[in-house]
Amino acid sequence: MFITFEGIDGSGKSTQARLLAAHLTAQGKQVILTREPGGSAGAEDIRRLLVEGDPGRWSAETEILLFTAARRDHLERTIRPALAAGTIVISDRFADSTRVYQGAARSNLRDTVDRLHDLMIGMEPDVTLILDTDPDAALARGLARKSGEDRFEDMGASFQHALRAGFTELAAANPQRCTLINGDRPVADVAQDIATRIETLL
Amino acid sequence: MFITFEGIDGSGKSTQARLLAAHLTAQGKQVILTREPGGSAGAEDIRRLLVEGDPGRWSAETEILLFTAARRDHLERTIRPALAAGTIVISDRFADSTRVYQGAARSNLRDTVDRLHDLMIGMEPDVTLILDTDPDAALARGLARKSGEDRFEDMGASFQHALRAGFTELAAANPQRCTLINGDRPVADVAQDIATRIETLL
Repeated sequence: MFITFEGIDGSGKSTQARLLAAHLTAQGKQVILTREPGGSAGAEDIRRLLVEGDPGRWSAETEILLFTAARRDHLERTIRPALAAGTIVISDRFADSTRVYQGAARSNLRDTVDRLHDLMIGMEPDVTLILDTDPDAALARGLARKSGEDRFEDMGASFQHALRAGFTELAAANPQRCTLINGDRPVADVAQDIATRIETLL
Repeated sequence: MFITFEGIDGSGKSTQARLLAAHLTAQGKQVILTREPGGSAGAEDIRRLLVEGDPGRWSAETEILLFTAARRDHLERTIRPALAAGTIVISDRFADSTRVYQGAARSNLRDTVDRLHDLMIGMEPDVTLILDTDPDAALARGLARKSGEDRFEDMGASFQHALRAGFTELAAANPQRCTLINGDRPVADVAQDIATRIETLL
């Protein structure tokens, strides 16, 4: 099973992905926790080009190509081998992030993202959990981290609001695969909610 | 005018691109000399991922995506602004290299390369000069350089022979745009040949 976590920056998805991986591992299941951009040696090298530097470092089109290159490497070297071995793969972000981030940046890019995905990736997760949180609170948490990987947070609050709307639309358009999770609750409550949903599916 | 030089590794195309740029500059023309992968700040960062490391560092598909990302940046930040200003652009490699290198590596990739080019690049040079040289002699020159950028030379002689055949086919399929230049001649003779052809076109 291939499970992805999605949401705006600072939405708590990385924490929840980690908690779900720990929960399933504690039940004796084979699990790997991975992330995008990154998740394989080559993709992590590409990640540095994407998350460091000025917000205007790349055009939206170049950015889409770099994300897709990283995703292809991640898929070939990490995700597919793990799934083939019967391991549950949990990824902190996947293709939906590119759809929503680039679509929010420039609406006419969404078609390009979809065509590129069909040409070079061509697979979807089994389950996508979208952490839905208040952008202003999430941005405050994200900025408080100051990790040196702040290119997207630096694009500001209105961009994060557009992202939240994009994820909400995505969930509505893909109800079989995507579930919106209220992320404005205590971490343990959100984790319990997610664990229950995944156990039902497994 | 957008002029590209193509050919196998060690074919002398970089030398000839430099000589043509110097020749046209000496005639008072505005010229920029650029190269791929690279030719803009971002594309040069991507170049390092492509030319350094093991031959098996990337799958062919990931490599195509990285080359296309670098090309998009090069086009947006270097080539199009220069052409818009009336400058002659001379590039050491462009999209034909991806077509021939990836097509030689795995023939079924050529269609993917073309579709990706149509989706994300969508332009061709006005003139492409293909330096046609003996692969064994070219490889000996290339290996003698040992620049630390040897990922493609390291793929060996049979790969370079397949590349030569690929460039010959490409020229045959695009006779309006592409010209095969015999590169197994003294550098000055090749340069004179090229200068004459370009002056006729200008």
